[in-house]
Amino acid sequence: MKRYLGIDPGLATTGYGVIETDGRGHKYIIAGTIRTSSGHTQSERLLKIFRHVQELLLKYEPEAIIMEELFFARNTTSAFYVAQAMGVVSLAAAMEDIPVYTYAPQMVKQAIVGHGRADKAEIQRFLRLLLNLPDTKMSDHASDALAIALCHVHQHGTPFATQGEEDAL
Amino acid sequence: MKRYLGIDPGLATTGYGVIETDGRGHKYIIAGTIRTSSGHTQSERLLKIFRHVQELLLKYEPEAIIMEELFFARNTTSAFYVAQAMGVVSLAAAMEDIPVYTYAPQMVKQAIVGHGRADKAEIQRFLRLLLNLPDTKMSDHASDALAIALCHVHQHGTPFATQGEEDAL
Repeated sequence: MKRYLGIDPGLATTGYGVIETDGRGHKYIIAGTIRTSSGHTQSERLLKIFRHVQELLLKYEPEAIIMEELFFARNTTSAFYVAQAMGVVSLAAAMEDIPVYTYAPQMVKQAIVGHGRADKAEIQRFLRLLLNLPDTKMSDHASDALAIALCHVHQHGTPFATQGEEDAL
Repeated sequence: MKRYLGIDPGLATTGYGVIETDGRGHKYIIAGTIRTSSGHTQSERLLKIFRHVQELLLKYEPEAIIMEELFFARNTTSAFYVAQAMGVVSLAAAMEDIPVYTYAPQMVKQAIVGHGRADKAEIQRFLRLLLNLPDTKMSDHASDALAIALCHVHQHGTPFATQGEEDAL
């Protein structure tokens, strides 16, 4: 059994989700959010995210951390914060010698719903089915984190998939 | 005597510079670059930068880390890497409870040369004079790091300066 940690990074709210797989079946382990207060400095907020990710790595011993590729076109200020958060998440991974994979948002949708134009509600519906999620309310950040982890597992889990795309990351 | 660490962050090359001040006179202590190889993963490169900054903090015990504000308009891919590097530098600062300050590029030029339109050569000339730099060749990244540290000292060092701008950072 292998575990994978998906992260949806952000300065105020970072989503995380852990799934477990035996290569065929996938199981939901945990998902949640790391929240930081605007009353703290940027550095303190990054430290809180970093420490929390370190705890997740220790507790769940994932094979990899997976995040969405960042696109800067939309909101450059928030992209700056997301990039900083991605930096400290990657750092936590490097300290434990855990690889980091990133996927484009369309690829995540493709992997989970089967096409690249799915909306959030559709992804959440598929996630609930595929991972047999508990019927409690889950934040968008947490479910985005599960989705990206599941995307990676689907890439790995397909026996005939070439490794080309991952090697190129 | 207080020391300040300026950082010019980047994934491939991060410049650093330490200056010391008694509030009136400023002294050059050290400057250099942290280089990472494209043969390593992004995470490994961030880890190298982080470790090196940690060493600088332990060795020189600066009062603060100072970096330039990041503008995304120009090159979004490199801005993404710079933001990630800024993230791990800020994290190293937070771990030692050291504050991080950022200044806009024009403010650095203003603080060192006296106007906001100075070019790199002009800044380096002023830096050599103000810090009595050794006459050896210094990389742009190292001198940018010294410039940003000196900018901060000038802000602090002016007895009649209001603290408003720093409070707003």
